[in-house]
Amino acid sequence: MKALTYQGPGRRSWHTVPDPSIQDPTDAIVRVDCVTICGTDLHILKGDVADVEPGRVLGHEAVGTVEEVGSAVGNLSVGDRVIVSCISSCGRCRYCRQGQYGQCRNDGGWILGHLIDGTQAERVRVPYADTSTYLLPPNVPMEDAVMLADILPTAYEVGVLNGRVRPGDTVVVIGAGPIGLAVVTAAQLFSPAQIIVVDPAPGRRSAAAKLGADLVIDPATTDPVQRVAELTDGLGADVAIEAVGIPETFETCVEIVRPGGHVANVGVHGKPATLHLETAWIRNLTITTGLVDTNTTADLLRMLESDRLAMPGLVTHRFGLDEFDEAYDVFAQPADTGALKVVLFSAEAAKEL
Amino acid sequence: MKALTYQGPGRRSWHTVPDPSIQDPTDAIVRVDCVTICGTDLHILKGDVADVEPGRVLGHEAVGTVEEVGSAVGNLSVGDRVIVSCISSCGRCRYCRQGQYGQCRNDGGWILGHLIDGTQAERVRVPYADTSTYLLPPNVPMEDAVMLADILPTAYEVGVLNGRVRPGDTVVVIGAGPIGLAVVTAAQLFSPAQIIVVDPAPGRRSAAAKLGADLVIDPATTDPVQRVAELTDGLGADVAIEAVGIPETFETCVEIVRPGGHVANVGVHGKPATLHLETAWIRNLTITTGLVDTNTTADLLRMLESDRLAMPGLVTHRFGLDEFDEAYDVFAQPADTGALKVVLFSAEAAKEL
Amino acid sequence: MKALTYQGPGRRSWHTVPDPSIQDPTDAIVRVDCVTICGTDLHILKGDVADVEPGRVLGHEAVGTVEEVGSAVGNLSVGDRVIVSCISSCGRCRYCRQGQYGQCRNDGGWILGHLIDGTQAERVRVPYADTSTYLLPPNVPMEDAVMLADILPTAYEVGVLNGRVRPGDTVVVIGAGPIGLAVVTAAQLFSPAQIIVVDPAPGRRSAAAKLGADLVIDPATTDPVQRVAELTDGLGADVAIEAVGIPETFETCVEIVRPGGHVANVGVHGKPATLHLETAWIRNLTITTGLVDTNTTADLLRMLESDRLAMPGLVTHRFGLDEFDEAYDVFAQPADTGALKVVLFSAEAAKEL
Amino acid sequence: MKALTYQGPGRRSWHTVPDPSIQDPTDAIVRVDCVTICGTDLHILKGDVADVEPGRVLGHEAVGTVEEVGSAVGNLSVGDRVIVSCISSCGRCRYCRQGQYGQCRNDGGWILGHLIDGTQAERVRVPYADTSTYLLPPNVPMEDAVMLADILPTAYEVGVLNGRVRPGDTVVVIGAGPIGLAVVTAAQLFSPAQIIVVDPAPGRRSAAAKLGADLVIDPATTDPVQRVAELTDGLGADVAIEAVGIPETFETCVEIVRPGGHVANVGVHGKPATLHLETAWIRNLTITTGLVDTNTTADLLRMLESDRLAMPGLVTHRFGLDEFDEAYDVFAQPADTGALKVVLFSAEAAKEL
Repeated sequence: MKALTYQGPGRRSWHTVPDPSIQDPTDAIVRVDCVTICGTDLHILKGDVADVEPGRVLGHEAVGTVEEVGSAVGNLSVGDRVIVSCISSCGRCRYCRQGQYGQCRNDGGWILGHLIDGTQAERVRVPYADTSTYLLPPNVPMEDAVMLADILPTAYEVGVLNGRVRPGDTVVVIGAGPIGLAVVTAAQLFSPAQIIVVDPAPGRRSAAAKLGADLVIDPATTDPVQRVAELTDGLGADVAIEAVGIPETFETCVEIVRPGGHVANVGVHGKPATLHLETAWIRNLTITTGLVDTNTTADLLRMLESDRLAMPGLVTHRFGLDEFDEAYDVFAQPADTGALKVVLFSAEAAKEL
Repeated sequence: MKALTYQGPGRRSWHTVPDPSIQDPTDAIVRVDCVTICGTDLHILKGDVADVEPGRVLGHEAVGTVEEVGSAVGNLSVGDRVIVSCISSCGRCRYCRQGQYGQCRNDGGWILGHLIDGTQAERVRVPYADTSTYLLPPNVPMEDAVMLADILPTAYEVGVLNGRVRPGDTVVVIGAGPIGLAVVTAAQLFSPAQIIVVDPAPGRRSAAAKLGADLVIDPATTDPVQRVAELTDGLGADVAIEAVGIPETFETCVEIVRPGGHVANVGVHGKPATLHLETAWIRNLTITTGLVDTNTTADLLRMLESDRLAMPGLVTHRFGLDEFDEAYDVFAQPADTGALKVVLFSAEAAKEL
Repeated sequence: MKALTYQGPGRRSWHTVPDPSIQDPTDAIVRVDCVTICGTDLHILKGDVADVEPGRVLGHEAVGTVEEVGSAVGNLSVGDRVIVSCISSCGRCRYCRQGQYGQCRNDGGWILGHLIDGTQAERVRVPYADTSTYLLPPNVPMEDAVMLADILPTAYEVGVLNGRVRPGDTVVVIGAGPIGLAVVTAAQLFSPAQIIVVDPAPGRRSAAAKLGADLVIDPATTDPVQRVAELTDGLGADVAIEAVGIPETFETCVEIVRPGGHVANVGVHGKPATLHLETAWIRNLTITTGLVDTNTTADLLRMLESDRLAMPGLVTHRFGLDEFDEAYDVFAQPADTGALKVVLFSAEAAKEL
Repeated sequence: MKALTYQGPGRRSWHTVPDPSIQDPTDAIVRVDCVTICGTDLHILKGDVADVEPGRVLGHEAVGTVEEVGSAVGNLSVGDRVIVSCISSCGRCRYCRQGQYGQCRNDGGWILGHLIDGTQAERVRVPYADTSTYLLPPNVPMEDAVMLADILPTAYEVGVLNGRVRPGDTVVVIGAGPIGLAVVTAAQLFSPAQIIVVDPAPGRRSAAAKLGADLVIDPATTDPVQRVAELTDGLGADVAIEAVGIPETFETCVEIVRPGGHVANVGVHGKPATLHLETAWIRNLTITTGLVDTNTTADLLRMLESDRLAMPGLVTHRFGLDEFDEAYDVFAQPADTGALKVVLFSAEAAKEL
């Protein structure tokens, strides 16, 4: 089959690799119908994720069709269309039993396109298939569903639920890349009074406004901490969600919330931040971090099914699987291309669109 | 001043009574700008609420303007426009300190128009004014704000929060009178996947649909338990909210939820219900009851201010204060008049509309 | 092998039956080392549980040693000593994924000794073994561990956690049979200010006091509602836990709690109760029901391991497996025998004591 | 009257100052029966707390007797014995209404001995007396009760509740000064499986063990991160509570918890810490900070009353009020004196002991 592999820092290739096969009785083989590229894939390609070995098929998000199941798979049948989740969950370790699938102790968690071959291929082996895939209802478009493989559960769980967004809240989202935009979408499920988005890129601020942000701030011209204070009677935001992954934006989040506020970190960080405990100790803050668990995927799917999750404009580009090189080029240059999420379809799946 | 008083079972009068005056240093005198009638007022008029003595000025909901404050009042100034909450809270007893103002131990709780003179008058004495009124922001219409005196906090706290409505849920509301309709509005703050409303009156089903119900059921022609089971893969609703106040509807709520589901009782009951523990014991149910605490009024006000709480069609009739008799007649005959909420304005306030 | 089987209403037999064998790849065969009898087994023997067919091996609680595992079992090895939980959990349905194993949708839940052969035998087939057994740490005695198969998780989850017992609370437990006594033990984990136990049997009241009840009440001589009111400044209990299973005791629980209080039903009921909504609607009650999920078994095991769960006097009688008839006779006549929990050991396991 | 005043960095004086008097109708004047010294008082004396002006009477913890009440005080009568809480709560601002009294917006919060004259005096003016004092039940000793003015609610709310200690948890407390020791006491209310205390001072480790720590670690000889990993199957602690107030110990807390763990900061910090987001982002951490709200004082009082809060050895020294100089000397030199908490009694109160 064809697959997109990592070939060492800066190098990738869409080429022929061996077909995957069932290795454990809990595996399934899924034919990829629709797949996307994550910012994390770009990090891997830069060589930033040391665990990823050359030759690894990338990708941890897909919608596909079950082609084969292991002997212990009970939820899935050949022909089922499923979301392949970015998190593999054994379903039986301490963490999986408590819904924290991202921390699975039995070689699960984020492994696809990382420690084992991933979804940017014509086929993928999915371990622990019963507890790591979600059956797609007939009326949900693949393009929406593939957003439930990673980006929406991440935004919802790590951003919105960890940040405990409540009706009437003032929510600040720092960073309007794909994950920040997904946070804007997910935050609306709890009807905050205002969602304020901070991003220096005009295109991303527009996208945020289109997705439902009430106010967008360009940090180059407006101090977000001061502006939010003005809008909140001097108090600060109820919730601040970090969706960039650098120390400065995290530190702004800590500063921008009111006493008793919540800071939810969603960004993937490569460096430490400074936590100003000399002022923060007295402010009753709650700061959370987290990898997604995907324990809300079924809930989100019900919301998609009932039209409660609109993501207008989040997908900006669509390709065929054999256009993977071009898709990566477009996704890697958002300032030039305006790319947010790019989606690729197999030739067969494209016929259904 | 003029006021609407209870004159014993079946009798009310809009007539002249003495003006109220400050009795305690924590009192305020509020001129009534906008007031409404509650279903509870009809119960009182029937003689169902034994605590209410003849001569009592009725009414526990208003928007008004502060005319005078006691020496210990710190939050309010003469001229402030405020919501007068249906619940008076001393702010210092065990229950008030825990946000359960409805259970206040210092002669607070629901007292207006019940144990002391109420808001259906030109003026009202508001005890514990600092902790029983809410300053109205300039851009919020009185007619919307008066819904925050009782009906919306009741729907939100006793229905939606007690029922723990979550994004993606199936929510059933039984009863589409004013309070059930307010539940339909408030439930949407948590983005359930579907809101299903059950009511035999076609006009109320229409009103529910207009306010956002996804499906309305006429129990005369469709068995709600069976219909909800069909819509939920045989499981039942996640949340059922009782908004009628009779045994049958409560019992339907218990039957209609899935294992692990929540039943939130909002209705005011006069008779016991049967709880089928022989089937319910194994179903992991949570059943809640409650008088409103109004501890979410400030949050709801922020939502009103930011246009997050739309109540199209909830107010069906508007009157002047001196039309109180007609207003009661209209409100008491909803089958004929189509009345949901009726609102009365003082002559002075009417000029602002 | 030998097993205790139900032979129709009123009849049981300890006799030879076929050995169990692996049927599904997720099964394990466990040799029973230690087993107990539950009040539910007595109900089955009376013919009250219609699902149980004649010939069924009874029992849903055991500690045993793994003899054989199916091909898909990953957590267990032959020779491991495990707790066999009363709840079988598939680990992959909606309910199991949310920790509500008791409501498993894939033929799990309470099935042992009910819908399939159970633990009152020399060997037992355990379905979904990975997610339905718990590895026993070396220092935990079998006799304590077998209490974690059902009675303690039931008391903890359905009584104490559902009732949301908090430090400083007044907790009333109605019924001091084995399950009520386990509630007394489990409630102490949250340091309530006082635990008050109501039971007409003097021996059970003594057992409750020994296990940590601060006050025991004989309802024949003292009105518990009035006594609890006196002890709580007229308010009522924070939490009332029903551990009998009849309408009267449930109704007392609803009456005995304060406004804002919690009623947790643990008892197994055969008849409906009356819920006095005409007084309860205004009292901010939370009433819960539930079958145990056993999602706290691992936590409870850590507490046992660290000596945080003392159950002095809960086990009153010990037998060999071949004394099953006598054990049932003793357990079924607590008024005469003083039996609370009876425990049976295999000959081999008895050598370890 | 006599009082202990701050006289600029390094200088204090026990001398005659004017008697306090009622300034607002919500004030009370309380005669001090029993008072203690807090580590914060030592910080003030060093000149570290810039808000404190020379001449200020120090102290924010006391038990005393009401001598006079303002006209709007409703809960208190002359002669009542009360705990004077370290937090003054107006009872009517947004924060006070939500139980976050420490963040009071009406000139409340921590003001005693800070922004207004405090409790280290023969008499003290207590603002917002109704909502800032707690009536002492007759059977509770003053010496225990004065611990509820600050140290125990701080340990319980900011340490134990913020850290969400649960039965069966492994809890690490870093720092065994008075506040860390109070955390050891308060954590036991939730029955963790093990409490591990880290402190370099042998006397404090002994005190921790006496108060209920299961294991004490000297960080000079044992790496706490490694030791806790060994004790938790390589995972780390469920909860880590920082009770020192320096960057190093905070950073150890972040490192020592398991994925999904909680870090509760109790220490007062003067410098920023480094938050290693490059490893923490993926570990599902919850980090909290906070000033005490004292919203649990009434609960803690019930626990004291029912003997659920034992603090053996926490008070090491007792003095008369006129020995304030000596008391400060002893408290400021714990390495030499072994001082933990020192308590001072008025001559009149001393007669009751």
